[in-house]
Amino acid sequence: MKKTLQELAAYLGGEVEGDGATVIAGIAGLDDAGEGQITFLANPRYAAKVATTNASAVVLPPGTDAHGRNAVRLANPYLAFAKLLTLYHVHPAPARGVMDGAWVGEQVTMGGDVTIWPGAFVGNNVTLGDRVTIHPGAVLYDGVTVGSDVTVHANVCIRERCRIGSRVTLHNGTVIGSDGFGYAPDGKGWFKIPQIGIVEIEDDVEIGANTVIDRAALERTLIRKGTKIDNLVQIAHNCVIGENCMIVSQVGISGSTKLGQHVTLAGQVGVAGHLEIGDNVMVGAKSGIPGNIPANQMMSGYPAVSHRDWLRSSAVVPKLPEMRRTLSDLEKRVKELEVQLAERD
Amino acid sequence: MKKTLQELAAYLGGEVEGDGATVIAGIAGLDDAGEGQITFLANPRYAAKVATTNASAVVLPPGTDAHGRNAVRLANPYLAFAKLLTLYHVHPAPARGVMDGAWVGEQVTMGGDVTIWPGAFVGNNVTLGDRVTIHPGAVLYDGVTVGSDVTVHANVCIRERCRIGSRVTLHNGTVIGSDGFGYAPDGKGWFKIPQIGIVEIEDDVEIGANTVIDRAALERTLIRKGTKIDNLVQIAHNCVIGENCMIVSQVGISGSTKLGQHVTLAGQVGVAGHLEIGDNVMVGAKSGIPGNIPANQMMSGYPAVSHRDWLRSSAVVPKLPEMRRTLSDLEKRVKELEVQLAERD
Amino acid sequence: MKKTLQELAAYLGGEVEGDGATVIAGIAGLDDAGEGQITFLANPRYAAKVATTNASAVVLPPGTDAHGRNAVRLANPYLAFAKLLTLYHVHPAPARGVMDGAWVGEQVTMGGDVTIWPGAFVGNNVTLGDRVTIHPGAVLYDGVTVGSDVTVHANVCIRERCRIGSRVTLHNGTVIGSDGFGYAPDGKGWFKIPQIGIVEIEDDVEIGANTVIDRAALERTLIRKGTKIDNLVQIAHNCVIGENCMIVSQVGISGSTKLGQHVTLAGQVGVAGHLEIGDNVMVGAKSGIPGNIPANQMMSGYPAVSHRDWLRSSAVVPKLPEMRRTLSDLEKRVKELEVQLAERD
Repeated sequence: MKKTLQELAAYLGGEVEGDGATVIAGIAGLDDAGEGQITFLANPRYAAKVATTNASAVVLPPGTDAHGRNAVRLANPYLAFAKLLTLYHVHPAPARGVMDGAWVGEQVTMGGDVTIWPGAFVGNNVTLGDRVTIHPGAVLYDGVTVGSDVTVHANVCIRERCRIGSRVTLHNGTVIGSDGFGYAPDGKGWFKIPQIGIVEIEDDVEIGANTVIDRAALERTLIRKGTKIDNLVQIAHNCVIGENCMIVSQVGISGSTKLGQHVTLAGQVGVAGHLEIGDNVMVGAKSGIPGNIPANQMMSGYPAVSHRDWLRSSAVVPKLPEMRRTLSDLEKRVKELEVQLAERD
Repeated sequence: MKKTLQELAAYLGGEVEGDGATVIAGIAGLDDAGEGQITFLANPRYAAKVATTNASAVVLPPGTDAHGRNAVRLANPYLAFAKLLTLYHVHPAPARGVMDGAWVGEQVTMGGDVTIWPGAFVGNNVTLGDRVTIHPGAVLYDGVTVGSDVTVHANVCIRERCRIGSRVTLHNGTVIGSDGFGYAPDGKGWFKIPQIGIVEIEDDVEIGANTVIDRAALERTLIRKGTKIDNLVQIAHNCVIGENCMIVSQVGISGSTKLGQHVTLAGQVGVAGHLEIGDNVMVGAKSGIPGNIPANQMMSGYPAVSHRDWLRSSAVVPKLPEMRRTLSDLEKRVKELEVQLAERD
Repeated sequence: MKKTLQELAAYLGGEVEGDGATVIAGIAGLDDAGEGQITFLANPRYAAKVATTNASAVVLPPGTDAHGRNAVRLANPYLAFAKLLTLYHVHPAPARGVMDGAWVGEQVTMGGDVTIWPGAFVGNNVTLGDRVTIHPGAVLYDGVTVGSDVTVHANVCIRERCRIGSRVTLHNGTVIGSDGFGYAPDGKGWFKIPQIGIVEIEDDVEIGANTVIDRAALERTLIRKGTKIDNLVQIAHNCVIGENCMIVSQVGISGSTKLGQHVTLAGQVGVAGHLEIGDNVMVGAKSGIPGNIPANQMMSGYPAVSHRDWLRSSAVVPKLPEMRRTLSDLEKRVKELEVQLAERD
């Protein structure tokens, strides 16, 4: 793969400075890049390295010194880095069709350029769009529908009738559509509430490894388009996760909770059930959310409070033993003062 | 599936009010139910909807107004809802036997109406009861025993010699019997302590997706009958989980801890090792349990205290910065008072 | 398996007391051991049982009374117990080669005594050392390399080009090399940063069930030799875990964090990204680590402080409501004193 700097600038939506005919064959960091490679300056702290890098070109944000290097000037060099990595390193494998050793059920509908690896299992009445890849050991139960340009990695399970959109990636071991955790006490033990709903995952969603999203009791658990979910996350039945959310590893979201769009939950956060979390809410790592949160808040702690208040109260907690001693001391001194004053009356 | 209201009342253990010959073909919520469907009132807040629902019959608790509708009167409409969902929606698939593409070892004993899907693996000396279903990609190592009416979902692993009771469901990706986490320091690093015990799961247990229950070092890790375990739970070696417990998602229980019966651990709780947790204990979400808990307690926080005390102290934590300022201010004022009094002497 | 006491003493590096010709056929605890078995005293609390055990020999630490029993005397009886369990109970199964129903790609290089079970999948250009066992449903993507004496349990996934050392065990459902969680905001949603690095796991590492270790964005996520990782652990992209660490269940470590050697993270700990954790650090269960930790510290809480300080402040937290009342009361009393003094002026 070789591109001229001019071609890269057009791809990235930036302006060339210097020689647009320079040929670029790869991408690397400021320290590692060499002849024929392009690098980028994302953190202004490293601006001086632009003068010394061996790269043939540099992606630069506005207002930084190019030190006479060939450059592409644009607003977001970090995004450009992601796009260049994609250009140089992401090449879809050629489609292989239904390979020997793949099990495919009856009444399965497939688009073009599908690959189903040996050891993958596709149940009856499944629908697959174009350019779907099902890796070994992945299991699609009956009635699943999958859009186009979807990658289902090895050992993923998609349960009965769940619906997956287009441009979705499911990493290894993830389970979509296992039963929600619902039981009614019957006086002796627990009577299972059948979970007859589904999970629906919209377009452009990526889900990490060994994550679990439970099917709804009656209707659907819904992951809206553009949302990214990390590894080992639990999303319980009937949740709705809005568009373009970021759900970091080991988060747990209890049943029927609804997230707005562009919500960020950092690692190991827990969210109680039947809540509404507004748009653009950010929740700090390990926090516990017991109630609704209006839009645009940044919360931390358990029970979560504003991130600012959490930082402040967290800083005081280690001083509690000292505060307690001071308080006890003050009580004695106040008592003494009271006695002294009383004696003078 | 069609039943008369009289038949449903008999199935549910309730009393018919109105026309017992009414034919019921399905179940839905108060708002959605229509002609030929039965609905239910579980929350008294919605009692007025009984008058306006389009359902052909309503399941009602004692003392509520039937508004002249056909009704089944019983104590626990929520449980009745679960039972009706089961009646109308849960229909076991016909048995398919050992299907082409299933791997079955030597000396495997099977009851009647077993289904082993393609891509499932059943090791040597495995025993399966009646009506067992092993989904694709599930792996039963040598010497596993499974009771009757058991569903092992796709990509579950059951390790060597573990024992599964009857009416057990294991959801996708769950691992039963992986090695406990035990090592002895040998002066350089860690020497593995072989984990030669098993896991035993009694009857009527359901375990969610991607949960892990480790085998015992020497004897057995035991899950007693009726207990329900959610997704992504960790149960370490040599634990005993009592009857009818509820272990919610992402809970972790350390080695050799024993839970009594009817214990509820909410999401993301952690329990230290070698503890005894009494019957009917309830632990709030995200709590950490460092010591034994007697029966019938409700605990929260980390380290956990009574739920009531946790609520109270949690409410004070955000006020710590203010308390610290007040304390500092009081110190100065008391000092000033002491000086003033001394000056008067 | 039968060994004389003298042979066991040589194997364990201890000294025989009594009859070295005693034949030992097994191992059990002080209470359970019988004729022909060896037992051990690890906890001095049980020293009196040495006199009453039915075992034919006892492993004893220095300075304890053998009560006239046949004994092996050595410094660390718990380690000896682990070694004896290994001797008597761990017997590698004979190699079976590439079994019918295993899928093996092109250009796969294998050492001697390899076993690949039915339903296992080994991609193209994979290299396997000697005595490697790949269980059913395990999936090795293209270009994976594996050392010798490695066990890959059922339904493990090892992604493209990842490298596994020798004497490594991967328990069921674990995922090595899924994509790191990296996205750049593009003004509308999230643009994926391709994760083109790998995971490298050095020798003598054991990893529990359903754990996930993400591949690096550009270079490698590294698990150094001798480290033990429990179930359901998350290790994010570009982390480096030092030698002989102990990472307990449900821990999450964020991207690019580096652990020194012999670090212990207890259950459910969370560690933020881009941190340095020094050698021999121990972190208590459920703690959250927001910053670097120098070597040899013991930390707890969230945000973590020294374990000692955490114990002290945790003990005060439940007293906060009382402290708040005392503080409020003191304010009033000080105000009253101030008024009284003012009145006297």
